Amino acid sequence: MNQRTWTVYLAGEIHSDWRERIEVGTREAGLPISFSAPVTDHSASDDAGVGTLGEESEPFWRDHMGAGVNAIRTQTLIRDADVVVVRFGDKYRQWNAAFDAGHAAALGKPYVTLHDEEFDHALKEVDRAAQATARTAEQVVDILRYVITGNLP
Amino acid sequence: MNQRTWTVYLAGEIHSDWRERIEVGTREAGLPISFSAPVTDHSASDDAGVGTLGEESEPFWRDHMGAGVNAIRTQTLIRDADVVVVRFGDKYRQWNAAFDAGHAAALGKPYVTLHDEEFDHALKEVDRAAQATARTAEQVVDILRYVITGNLP
Amino acid sequence: MNQRTWTVYLAGEIHSDWRERIEVGTREAGLPISFSAPVTDHSASDDAGVGTLGEESEPFWRDHMGAGVNAIRTQTLIRDADVVVVRFGDKYRQWNAAFDAGHAAALGKPYVTLHDEEFDHALKEVDRAAQATARTAEQVVDILRYVITGNLP
Amino acid sequence: MNQRTWTVYLAGEIHSDWRERIEVGTREAGLPISFSAPVTDHSASDDAGVGTLGEESEPFWRDHMGAGVNAIRTQTLIRDADVVVVRFGDKYRQWNAAFDAGHAAALGKPYVTLHDEEFDHALKEVDRAAQATARTAEQVVDILRYVITGNLP
Amino acid sequence: MNQRTWTVYLAGEIHSDWRERIEVGTREAGLPISFSAPVTDHSASDDAGVGTLGEESEPFWRDHMGAGVNAIRTQTLIRDADVVVVRFGDKYRQWNAAFDAGHAAALGKPYVTLHDEEFDHALKEVDRAAQATARTAEQVVDILRYVITGNLP
Amino acid sequence: MNQRTWTVYLAGEIHSDWRERIEVGTREAGLPISFSAPVTDHSASDDAGVGTLGEESEPFWRDHMGAGVNAIRTQTLIRDADVVVVRFGDKYRQWNAAFDAGHAAALGKPYVTLHDEEFDHALKEVDRAAQATARTAEQVVDILRYVITGNLP
Amino acid sequence: MNQRTWTVYLAGEIHSDWRERIEVGTREAGLPISFSAPVTDHSASDDAGVGTLGEESEPFWRDHMGAGVNAIRTQTLIRDADVVVVRFGDKYRQWNAAFDAGHAAALGKPYVTLHDEEFDHALKEVDRAAQATARTAEQVVDILRYVITGNLP
Amino acid sequence: MNQRTWTVYLAGEIHSDWRERIEVGTREAGLPISFSAPVTDHSASDDAGVGTLGEESEPFWRDHMGAGVNAIRTQTLIRDADVVVVRFGDKYRQWNAAFDAGHAAALGKPYVTLHDEEFDHALKEVDRAAQATARTAEQVVDILRYVITGNLP
Repeated sequence: MNQRTWTVYLAGEIHSDWRERIEVGTREAGLPISFSAPVTDHSASDDAGVGTLGEESEPFWRDHMGAGVNAIRTQTLIRDADVVVVRFGDKYRQWNAAFDAGHAAALGKPYVTLHDEEFDHALKEVDRAAQATARTAEQVVDILRYVITGNLP
Repeated sequence: MNQRTWTVYLAGEIHSDWRERIEVGTREAGLPISFSAPVTDHSASDDAGVGTLGEESEPFWRDHMGAGVNAIRTQTLIRDADVVVVRFGDKYRQWNAAFDAGHAAALGKPYVTLHDEEFDHALKEVDRAAQATARTAEQVVDILRYVITGNLP
Repeated sequence: MNQRTWTVYLAGEIHSDWRERIEVGTREAGLPISFSAPVTDHSASDDAGVGTLGEESEPFWRDHMGAGVNAIRTQTLIRDADVVVVRFGDKYRQWNAAFDAGHAAALGKPYVTLHDEEFDHALKEVDRAAQATARTAEQVVDILRYVITGNLP
Repeated sequence: MNQRTWTVYLAGEIHSDWRERIEVGTREAGLPISFSAPVTDHSASDDAGVGTLGEESEPFWRDHMGAGVNAIRTQTLIRDADVVVVRFGDKYRQWNAAFDAGHAAALGKPYVTLHDEEFDHALKEVDRAAQATARTAEQVVDILRYVITGNLP
Repeated sequence: MNQRTWTVYLAGEIHSDWRERIEVGTREAGLPISFSAPVTDHSASDDAGVGTLGEESEPFWRDHMGAGVNAIRTQTLIRDADVVVVRFGDKYRQWNAAFDAGHAAALGKPYVTLHDEEFDHALKEVDRAAQATARTAEQVVDILRYVITGNLP
Repeated sequence: MNQRTWTVYLAGEIHSDWRERIEVGTREAGLPISFSAPVTDHSASDDAGVGTLGEESEPFWRDHMGAGVNAIRTQTLIRDADVVVVRFGDKYRQWNAAFDAGHAAALGKPYVTLHDEEFDHALKEVDRAAQATARTAEQVVDILRYVITGNLP
Repeated sequence: MNQRTWTVYLAGEIHSDWRERIEVGTREAGLPISFSAPVTDHSASDDAGVGTLGEESEPFWRDHMGAGVNAIRTQTLIRDADVVVVRFGDKYRQWNAAFDAGHAAALGKPYVTLHDEEFDHALKEVDRAAQATARTAEQVVDILRYVITGNLP
Repeated sequence: MNQRTWTVYLAGEIHSDWRERIEVGTREAGLPISFSAPVTDHSASDDAGVGTLGEESEPFWRDHMGAGVNAIRTQTLIRDADVVVVRFGDKYRQWNAAFDAGHAAALGKPYVTLHDEEFDHALKEVDRAAQATARTAEQVVDILRYVITGNLP
């Protein structure tokens, strides 16, 4: 059987350590995974447009420029990924996470959602198109281990 | 020049009269548009699964069943639409609206967002991939009139 | 809102009256649906090749010719359908029904499965990619009514 | 001429040694093939959902969870494969094998079926869309040798 | 069941009356078919470029211009067709017929070949990707009748 | 043979009467064509954004808004068209015409260019991917007549 | 600038040394190309089906089996190729070469034809969709050198 | 996080050193990028057809042959690229640059435009579909650095 490296894109929330926990967990499990993600430094991400293309005083266009530059990264990496994990945290509205999930769904790319039960009803459409809904980063590690090696915890 | 009927899918918020205002406005303008939308009766939408397939006590699976049945409608109508309008209101998290936008974006389907300025920053990714961001239903009518007839208000 | 005619392909089992029950039920409900299906006359279907192209004594090639001619019909109609319903009955192996489901899934076409509980485990992959699993033809009618009109029974 | 590594996905039956025989046979023939497959440990596969995401008492949802997790693996590997081999054995209904074949067919991915004559009639649609129908694992080895090297046994 | 009009593109040989025989046969059978075809007037077809765009003395470019103009028609109509029939006669090399078949195959569009046995070996790749190989126009009529109505002769 | 209505999108230059001449010419020839085009009122087109969505003082963003609104129309109509005609006149840089041609080419949609010889060298890439390069509106009429009816002038 | 390895599929005629001449020529030019091709041993190719799957007395089915097995190779390698070269020689009808060209065209894959002037008229549709028509293997080497390095002979 | 090599295609103007400045800038920044580009030697590019395929006296066909050969390179490299940068300079009409942008847009491939403000109005459609509009090669370097590493200058 082949020793394929899997590509996993970690979308969504950028204010907790869930990405790190998944990366540490899968590394400890020895899984051949290459992770990718959006830029997770919040202020750099907000300044992606004006920091590269120059000042813009109007907030709407400032965001517009930033979102364009960020999309170069996110679109490319989502398209490259075998699997997408989409995390919804308890802060902010995180519409971009749901947008990424819709993008993955339309591309026929399998994704896993990661969120607490309190969001179940609000996320029902996003969860329905997912292959799994996890509650913890550890469950995501377990899913990836199983998917790649066939071994359960 | 042809007398094409345009198909417009109205996605998102179901708690205000924005759909009606767009439909009335375009009808008064004599525009050849066939509108479509998700089921906008909130409780029917929530019961779409158990109301057709039978009881389910577990809330997660209840939502899962409902979201599946609703997706038959929404996926078909989004795929059929020439243009999608995605409305974000001030209640609920409306992740499904962002999910629909991501879906439309990945299909290369032009869409217009409709929301207040207060959500500009949170919706920057969704707005970036849109062809326009409107603030009022009347602006959406103006856009549709222009797109179909070439006439500005 | 538009008065769209929906196209529904009824795949799978050809030895019970489930198609008729769905057609009668949706007609009584006044739903604008155009149904399509494979050829449901078992012996005609088996003779599709030799009955049009001439004799063939070898059973494998006889089936091969028939399956080719049938595929012209089934591929075209599945591709045309908005929704596919896939019925698994209690006779025969019905691999073609599962094959049609796989085809629909890969095309991103929403489908509903229709079968008894006894097949749940064996059909779990097919059901997972479906938008709903119904037990009776009446439930399929209810789903179609809801999807098209938004009304629950 | 190039020294391409071919990727071959071995779908279907998990209760006999056909995969091993193909792998041994192609290794002995020195063919540059990277094989992939679903998880072939039956009980692990059945527990893919509850073993990673936690308990679920309802059998239907238990299977649903498992099928979702397994689909992350199977969809990714089928999409990656150059060629798919689909085996139908004499036990169980194996609808998932036919489902995988339908998936491969719709993606325009060449596949080979592997089964006894007794299933010829029931599998005629699946065989028709295949590029070849083999009876033994050794024949599959011969096909792969020819496809890759141009040499017949 | 619906009263669908089928679109059938008749590709290939333009020097015998096979198109007419299929059209007469299906009309007599009352089949709802809309036929399309390349321009079948040989000299008009050869002059498609210079007759519309002006003289060109170099034969290669003269053919190039003509083939471009003809391709506007053939590409559009093949893409529109539900089914393609590809006829190989006993004159000329008819590479364009095989080219059209390759085009249809890559688009996943079902096609039927129509030719005498003497070409079987030379056309084996083209026939393999077809859903049927007919010997006479009447057999094509029988196939279309069956595909559309389910009735055998 | 069928009485298909052809859809033709007329892209590019908006400062001469070439569209009218094609429409008059094809109407006189009795051709079943439904034409579509971008908004050809130059000042309305420039104001498409600010005229519908409200003022914007920055010229770059003013154009950006306008181009977005216009793209809803042009993308939809190009996608709908069977054939695209792309006109390059002697004023302005007309990069949008070349952009539309690139779009049509990537979608596999046949297009015809219409321009004087003086631009041949500069347009060689655009002409190469076209099915024909015409010099006059009348030649475009001749091409459309031939493509639809098979008759040369 | 990158040191990309180009993949070139050499389709068509198998009775002269044109493949070897292209391979030798590009090797001498130091071009980073990985070539692929159908099986060029004529009798092995004809026996591809019966040599792997067992005897078949009926010539049509014998060819059918062989064409299926060969298609696993050719479809995979054409799909993998950056560029396809299609050679038409002066023997046999070579419909499979035209079929491969149609396949490449529909996939949007650039291809070059290679044939004598005597076939220009018969191959006009195939040449029209090609990016170039070469007369000698040396010209193909020159094209590949230019395409990869930008250097003319 | 993975150490992905990004592929960037540099389209458009070939008469200034902008490509070199981007390559030097990104090399100094240590970015893992593999650049590709059209042939930038103007006279070689113009002779791509006649230099490989032999003389052609008619300028239109001379350009046609050259554009075909060049398209083998440009289509392949654009399709391979993660990101496209499209440069518009102040000389020539550069319709091919806009054509490449339209191609990239239709393929859903993210691109960045690079041009002076004086062209903003004429390029509004091309800029609208881009993810960013840069004024200097250094800004493109900054965008690529951010996209790949998340670091702002």
